[in-house]
Amino acid sequence: MSAGLREYLDGPHKAVRDVVRDGLAANAGLLNAGLDLSRDEYRDQVLAVMQQVTAEGHTGRGFPKEFGGQGDLGGFIAGFETLAFGDLSLMVKAGVQFGLFAGAILHLGTSRHHEQYLTDAIDGRLLGCFAMTETGHGSNVQALGTTATYDPATEEFVVHTPNPAARKDYIGNAARHGRMAAVFAQLVVGGETHGVHCLLVPIRTPDGESMPGVTLSDCGPKLGLNGVDNGRIVFDHVRVPRTALLDRYAQVDAEGTYSSEIENPDRRFFTMLGTLVQGRVSVGGAAINASKVALTIAIRYADRRRQFGAPGSAEEALLLDYRMHQRRLLPLLARTYALHFAQAELVDEFVRIFGSNGADNTESKGHTDGEGGLGDRDEHDQRALEAQAAGTKALGTWHATETIQMCREACGGAGYLAENRLAALKADTDVFTTFEGDNTVLLQLVAKGLLTNYRESFGKLDPLGMARFIAAQAVEIAVEKAALRTVVERLRDAVPNRNDTADPDAGLRDDAYHCGMVRFREDHMLAGVARRLKKGIDAGDDTFEVFNRCQDHVIAAGRAHVERVVLEAFLAAVQAAPEGPVRDRLKELYDLHALATIEAERAWYIEHGRLSGQRCKAITALVNELCASVRPHADELVEAFGVPGAAVDVPMVVPSQHE
Amino acid sequence: MSAGLREYLDGPHKAVRDVVRDGLAANAGLLNAGLDLSRDEYRDQVLAVMQQVTAEGHTGRGFPKEFGGQGDLGGFIAGFETLAFGDLSLMVKAGVQFGLFAGAILHLGTSRHHEQYLTDAIDGRLLGCFAMTETGHGSNVQALGTTATYDPATEEFVVHTPNPAARKDYIGNAARHGRMAAVFAQLVVGGETHGVHCLLVPIRTPDGESMPGVTLSDCGPKLGLNGVDNGRIVFDHVRVPRTALLDRYAQVDAEGTYSSEIENPDRRFFTMLGTLVQGRVSVGGAAINASKVALTIAIRYADRRRQFGAPGSAEEALLLDYRMHQRRLLPLLARTYALHFAQAELVDEFVRIFGSNGADNTESKGHTDGEGGLGDRDEHDQRALEAQAAGTKALGTWHATETIQMCREACGGAGYLAENRLAALKADTDVFTTFEGDNTVLLQLVAKGLLTNYRESFGKLDPLGMARFIAAQAVEIAVEKAALRTVVERLRDAVPNRNDTADPDAGLRDDAYHCGMVRFREDHMLAGVARRLKKGIDAGDDTFEVFNRCQDHVIAAGRAHVERVVLEAFLAAVQAAPEGPVRDRLKELYDLHALATIEAERAWYIEHGRLSGQRCKAITALVNELCASVRPHADELVEAFGVPGAAVDVPMVVPSQHE
Repeated sequence: MSAGLREYLDGPHKAVRDVVRDGLAANAGLLNAGLDLSRDEYRDQVLAVMQQVTAEGHTGRGFPKEFGGQGDLGGFIAGFETLAFGDLSLMVKAGVQFGLFAGAILHLGTSRHHEQYLTDAIDGRLLGCFAMTETGHGSNVQALGTTATYDPATEEFVVHTPNPAARKDYIGNAARHGRMAAVFAQLVVGGETHGVHCLLVPIRTPDGESMPGVTLSDCGPKLGLNGVDNGRIVFDHVRVPRTALLDRYAQVDAEGTYSSEIENPDRRFFTMLGTLVQGRVSVGGAAINASKVALTIAIRYADRRRQFGAPGSAEEALLLDYRMHQRRLLPLLARTYALHFAQAELVDEFVRIFGSNGADNTESKGHTDGEGGLGDRDEHDQRALEAQAAGTKALGTWHATETIQMCREACGGAGYLAENRLAALKADTDVFTTFEGDNTVLLQLVAKGLLTNYRESFGKLDPLGMARFIAAQAVEIAVEKAALRTVVERLRDAVPNRNDTADPDAGLRDDAYHCGMVRFREDHMLAGVARRLKKGIDAGDDTFEVFNRCQDHVIAAGRAHVERVVLEAFLAAVQAAPEGPVRDRLKELYDLHALATIEAERAWYIEHGRLSGQRCKAITALVNELCASVRPHADELVEAFGVPGAAVDVPMVVPSQHE
Repeated sequence: MSAGLREYLDGPHKAVRDVVRDGLAANAGLLNAGLDLSRDEYRDQVLAVMQQVTAEGHTGRGFPKEFGGQGDLGGFIAGFETLAFGDLSLMVKAGVQFGLFAGAILHLGTSRHHEQYLTDAIDGRLLGCFAMTETGHGSNVQALGTTATYDPATEEFVVHTPNPAARKDYIGNAARHGRMAAVFAQLVVGGETHGVHCLLVPIRTPDGESMPGVTLSDCGPKLGLNGVDNGRIVFDHVRVPRTALLDRYAQVDAEGTYSSEIENPDRRFFTMLGTLVQGRVSVGGAAINASKVALTIAIRYADRRRQFGAPGSAEEALLLDYRMHQRRLLPLLARTYALHFAQAELVDEFVRIFGSNGADNTESKGHTDGEGGLGDRDEHDQRALEAQAAGTKALGTWHATETIQMCREACGGAGYLAENRLAALKADTDVFTTFEGDNTVLLQLVAKGLLTNYRESFGKLDPLGMARFIAAQAVEIAVEKAALRTVVERLRDAVPNRNDTADPDAGLRDDAYHCGMVRFREDHMLAGVARRLKKGIDAGDDTFEVFNRCQDHVIAAGRAHVERVVLEAFLAAVQAAPEGPVRDRLKELYDLHALATIEAERAWYIEHGRLSGQRCKAITALVNELCASVRPHADELVEAFGVPGAAVDVPMVVPSQHE
């Protein structure tokens, strides 16, 4: 069974995944590099392996063929996700170099930049940074402090850090290896500020010395990912030529005239930022794959480790035969499958939108498109994709943190030893919940998109922007939400009534029931948030206060939406699976995931009249039963993830290999 | 306010706490040792600081005066807990040496051992290990594989590791510094096995070489606590004199006759183990204090860091003014206060029972007590204390894991940098949930004690033992539980009715309401578990199956009990606090904790008819309001913890000190 299931999980990019798996197995030594080497040695080894992978041609997979790439965006993401089965510093370093740095050149630059830099960036000859975050500003990118001021006398931009809060911080590749940085700065032309734009700024000479005016420092040791050289950059009036501006969406001519096809500065900013969605898509996938590694280790351990006696048996009982142990691990296993399929759906959508627009065919859009880069239909799709990426990233990364923590605890003291790898997984993935967008901020972005139906969502991401938007759209929203309430009523009729306690088990494994429940929750929460925001604004309350009073509700609504999307993606994957054992196993996991998800929110469902206390108990009992049904297949179900042996054959699971 | 509050929190051992605070401040350099030094250098520095603390006389505080101690058990625990404000490797290393190793000699040995070893152990001249856990057995201590076989020909015990699973593992002090180990082994005398006993076995020469027959190895790098030299010990027929047996509860004479005042082997085992409860008491307190450090850092950061705009203001809004941020941090702050007072109550009880029985007055019990060490009343108290320690340890350590994780995420990328200390706190405390007793196993112990009312709880801690016990006591339990149900009905009348929705806010800040609710939950869950266990056993089902079907329910019931104990301890502390701002602040935090606790379990309360949907919403609204009321005092409330500046003045909070 596990071979067929693995093939189904691997999907269309199975070949790429296998190549990366083989590469990880060949570089298994890197898994211990973080333990044995000094920080700088570890960083250099990560770089060495990255350059080897580069030499084999994998890292260019997602780039246009004319720059040495293969024009295969889906394969590129699949390969990147698979890197998460190995050392996560390697994955993050590769993400910085090929996703963020080269990605910024590809998406924000034009042919001049592509021709000059892209081949070297893809080859790893030109190592670069993505210098967006500052000490004072992480989530609120529009408020960055770094400036790039145009000097028409010399036709240069002067890049400058005006105060300590504007220092570039946490920048991967900055402490040691990066030679150039894609720097996000407020563009000042002719005394006027045009908002955040990106420029290429050399930061190190080929000898590794800092460029004049550039001060580089090291962020020092971190909780994890110590194979990545995160650093800080301070600019003291650093001059770069006019052509350093990545000018796909805005140009400055020699005389110092600023122009852009996108007139609205907010819209321009979010259009630029939107092209960088690949980072979020990739991190979500990596987090889900890291969860697979941890579950493979913990479930194999629980299926071998015995503790305490079962009556009438000389042997002690296996940990995985204890209900509590099943309860702790198996719903997380089911959820990992759910997220896997949601991620696959996201990647498909990403490739659909960017495959012809970003990677293969850069020049067909951009300058040649008088509308400003993206047509109207594309724009809607693009905003929807960003929301989907944000939501999947938030749930996937929180899931990784929770799952790896649970796996550690489920392995006791053995799980605490570095040799058993859960320590590194825990430490390395921990930052995923707050980098590439803080999860709470991302869920607000999701909720905002839903409230505005993506139609005009170029307002700022901050609370004020959201509240203002709602205010502007109040009438329309009220109409929409009234329509929504009708939908809600309809759903209310479709799902079993709370008084239907004659047979509390009826329909609990019916997918229409699950979907109806999670949809009801999503719709009801969104309508509730909209009503509360509108009511406060109509009453003339301070907009920040109005938003802030609802912030937890907004975030919960965003989350409810993503939960629904994830559940439906899992269901679609079950329905599309080959008939027989693969589909049977998946349906069982799907049921476990669906019911555990409803169970986790049962208080809300009862409060809103969708569940009776008795039906709740029936759901809990069925979750327990499903754990018991999944248990005999648990080993096969993690085997199907296809994590390379080197990453999971740890001493506590395979002692004979190590002693 | 914060000075008064701090004094109240510090309680009777304020002076000791201040001495330790000063010591930590004086050794602030140790906080970075884990980052800058190699593993062995770090370990040696931890040892050096520990020996300095020893030289100042603090570590002997809990020991009898005749061995250089001060007979002040309460002060000893307070000092140990305060160590958790500093480097946690130091705290754990001290715990191994003075709590576990010297504690085993004190509690399990007799005057011969006290006179020969105790002064050296307290002085830190004799570094020792507590060699209980084995590779194959952690939680199930009764099943340890190491043997100690008496050889009357030479009047020696032969200590031996019969198979790889019996290797001593994760043993603190074993990899580098320990010279002697308190080894737990199956005692075999005259061909008969008498269960697990403890012997003192030299493992290293004064030069640091392994003793003949002893193979020592290093557990290598760990997720955290890398300043502690955890190692492995394998014994190959190692001979120690007959007097090496710590013989307070059982003796072997020269001819090889085994005797013990406690005839029942299970009872003997648990009596011996029970004397070691101090470890659990200490770890719980340390975890709670580590939470204070993290909250101090994260709340100070949130009260300084701005992000995104508030309307009409040029400045961005403080993180701590966002509702979601308050929601994430402030209930955890309130819960930290709750656990602080529960821990203080536990320590008082520990000192009451052990103060005259363990530390000061060792010889008044033990050999001179024909009943076997503890009288009947003592035995009941002792079991109750063990349950209380187990429960507080479980909730305190899970709280630390959750709180430190939340603090890290609330500080974003800055929280991920080692310089801001959350990384070390997270990594070092992570093992607390599974060492000194796995939390899930501990909550089963709590539940078992409640089900049996501590009357005869010498059965094994394993599921079979619990199920067998229930079976044996079935009739009596049924009677008890019937009585319990009456109590439950009475409570049901005492708390507001679910239909009482005319004013859903009524009485929400009434402490009688809170206590009634958590008591109802505890009693109802325990009665439910008892009924389910009895039903299964009466039906003749396999006892392991009967237990296993209820395992999640058993653990939840144990947890519900501890939640009630914690809430009541907090309430008692509020009531005993000085009138005025100190009591006012505490009452507000208490309300927040009480309502957040009820809110977290609202699904259960609704299912059991104790809450209406409307009242639930009122509780959530009030939790939000209380967060807003606590928010202006948040800085003072963490200030009152009295964490030394060196531990919390990190760069992200006090940048001027570092740049």
